[in-house]
Amino acid sequence: MQQFENAVIVGVGLLGGSIGLALRHRGIARRIVGVGRHAPSLSQAIELQAITEMSLDLQHACHGADLIVVCTPVQAIPAVVTQCLNSSLASNCLLTDVGSTKVGICEKLEDAVHRRFCGAHPIAGSDRSGVSHARADLFEGRMAIVTPTPQTPDSLVAQAENFWQLLGCRTMSMTPEAHDRVMARVSHLPHLIAAALAAATDRHFLPFVGTGWEDTTRIAAGNVEMWQQIIAENQQPILDALRDYSECLEQWIEAIESNDFQMLSELLQIGKSQRDSISE
Amino acid sequence: MQQFENAVIVGVGLLGGSIGLALRHRGIARRIVGVGRHAPSLSQAIELQAITEMSLDLQHACHGADLIVVCTPVQAIPAVVTQCLNSSLASNCLLTDVGSTKVGICEKLEDAVHRRFCGAHPIAGSDRSGVSHARADLFEGRMAIVTPTPQTPDSLVAQAENFWQLLGCRTMSMTPEAHDRVMARVSHLPHLIAAALAAATDRHFLPFVGTGWEDTTRIAAGNVEMWQQIIAENQQPILDALRDYSECLEQWIEAIESNDFQMLSELLQIGKSQRDSISE
Repeated sequence: MQQFENAVIVGVGLLGGSIGLALRHRGIARRIVGVGRHAPSLSQAIELQAITEMSLDLQHACHGADLIVVCTPVQAIPAVVTQCLNSSLASNCLLTDVGSTKVGICEKLEDAVHRRFCGAHPIAGSDRSGVSHARADLFEGRMAIVTPTPQTPDSLVAQAENFWQLLGCRTMSMTPEAHDRVMARVSHLPHLIAAALAAATDRHFLPFVGTGWEDTTRIAAGNVEMWQQIIAENQQPILDALRDYSECLEQWIEAIESNDFQMLSELLQIGKSQRDSISE
Repeated sequence: MQQFENAVIVGVGLLGGSIGLALRHRGIARRIVGVGRHAPSLSQAIELQAITEMSLDLQHACHGADLIVVCTPVQAIPAVVTQCLNSSLASNCLLTDVGSTKVGICEKLEDAVHRRFCGAHPIAGSDRSGVSHARADLFEGRMAIVTPTPQTPDSLVAQAENFWQLLGCRTMSMTPEAHDRVMARVSHLPHLIAAALAAATDRHFLPFVGTGWEDTTRIAAGNVEMWQQIIAENQQPILDALRDYSECLEQWIEAIESNDFQMLSELLQIGKSQRDSISE
C-alpha cells in the first residue's frame, strides 16, 4: 500500500495534520515531513504522530520529495508551491493543495501544472482549527474536488485523484471556475450567513440561545484570517451568492409581512426537503 | 421526591415525551397520562415508558390532575388549556405549556392565570420531532423561561419555576412580550435564516455541501406546520429581526464589494467572539 517514500506537508494544522494521520494510519507514506513556521506546533504534530519529521526550511524539506501537500491559508499557496518547485523534487512528485478557493491559485500556478502541480480541495473540515483537532478519518467518505486547468496533463489529474482516494475521499474533477462558483454557494455563503447571525445577536440575548442558534452559528467560530482570505479570493461569486440570498430573504419577509402563510409554508417545505435530502 | 400524583401531558412528541421520561426517571410523578389524537404514537410513548397511561379524551384524562403540561403546536395551546379547565382538576393543579411563543397564548389565557395556568418555554429541542427522539435529559442544564402576566399570583409563578427546575432546568421569569422579542432574535430568526439557506441552495450543488452547510441548515429540517404557527404567532418581532439581519448582511456585502477587508475581518471577529462565548 505504500505509495510515497518522502511526503511533505506544508502547514500542519487541522487539515495538514489529518492528512499526516491518514497517510500513517493507512500506511501510504514512509516518511512524512511537516513544514511550518512555528516549531512548537510542529513538535505537537510529531507527538500526535501526524508527521514523522519536522522542518522550518521548506526548500530543504522538499529535497527528493515525491508528495507535497500544501495546507497553508489560500493566499500563501502559490508562493509556497513556487518555492517547492525550486527544490530538487523526485521526478514523479505530486504537488497538490487543500485550498478552499481555486481560480486565483490555479491561475498563478498555470505554469506549474507541467511541473507536477494539480490543485485540489477536500470538502472536509471543522469549526475547530489546529493539529490538536486533526483526525485520521477526517477525509473518509468526503468529496475531494480536483481542479485541473486545460494545460494539466491527464496523467497528473489521475495521480491527484488517486492520492485523495487513498485518503478515503470520493473525487470529482472540475474547472477552478466551476469549483469556486459552487463553493461560494455551499461553503462561503453559509459561513457569512452564520457569522452575520452570530455578530447580529445582541450579547444580552446570548444566555437565551438554544441548539438552533448554536447549530446555525457553529462555523462562525472558524479562523478569521483564513476566512478573510477565502472571501477575498472568491469575491465575485460570493457577492453573487450573498445578493441572491438577500433577495431570497426578501421573499420570506414579504410572505410573512403580507400574512401569506401558505407561501411561507411552501418556502419552509422547500428548505426542509432540501435539508432532509442531505441527512438521508 | 414525588411531587405529582396525576400528571397529564397533552401532545406526546419530542418535548412532551421528554417531559414524561424526565418525570419518570426523576421519580417526580406517579401516574403520567399522555393525551393525543393518534393512538399509535401514544402506544409508542407507553412502550418507550414516557407515559404510564394514554387517552384520546382530554377532559376525562384531566379529571383529578395536579399537573398538566400542554405540548401541542402553539396555536392549539389556548383551546387545549381552556378545555382542561372544564375538567375537575385538583385544587393545587399546575397548568403550564412549552410553547415557543408566549404573547398570543398568555393574552388568550389571561383569565386562566387565576385558574392555575402559567405559561412557560423550556429552551430545549431538536431538529428531530416525535416521541421516538425523546430523551430524559433533554432539559438538563437548559433554560426554562416562565412568563407570568401582571395578574399571575406569585405563588403560581414559584410553582411553575419549581416544576421546570425539577426537570433539570435553570429558570427565569419575564413578560410574554420580552420573551417573544428575545426568541424572535435567538430562535425564530435562526430558523428562517437556516431554512432560507437550505431553500436557496441549487439542488445540483447539494452533493458538494460539507459540514458547514450541514450545521448551518440543520434546523431547517424542523416540522413545517409547527414553525409556520410560531412565525404567525410572533409575526412583528420576527419581521423586525429579519429586517435588522438583512441590513446587517448589506453591511457585509458592502465591505466585500468595496474591498474593505479590514472591515470584513472586524465583522468576522465579532461573529467569532460571540460564537466562542457560547462554547466556553
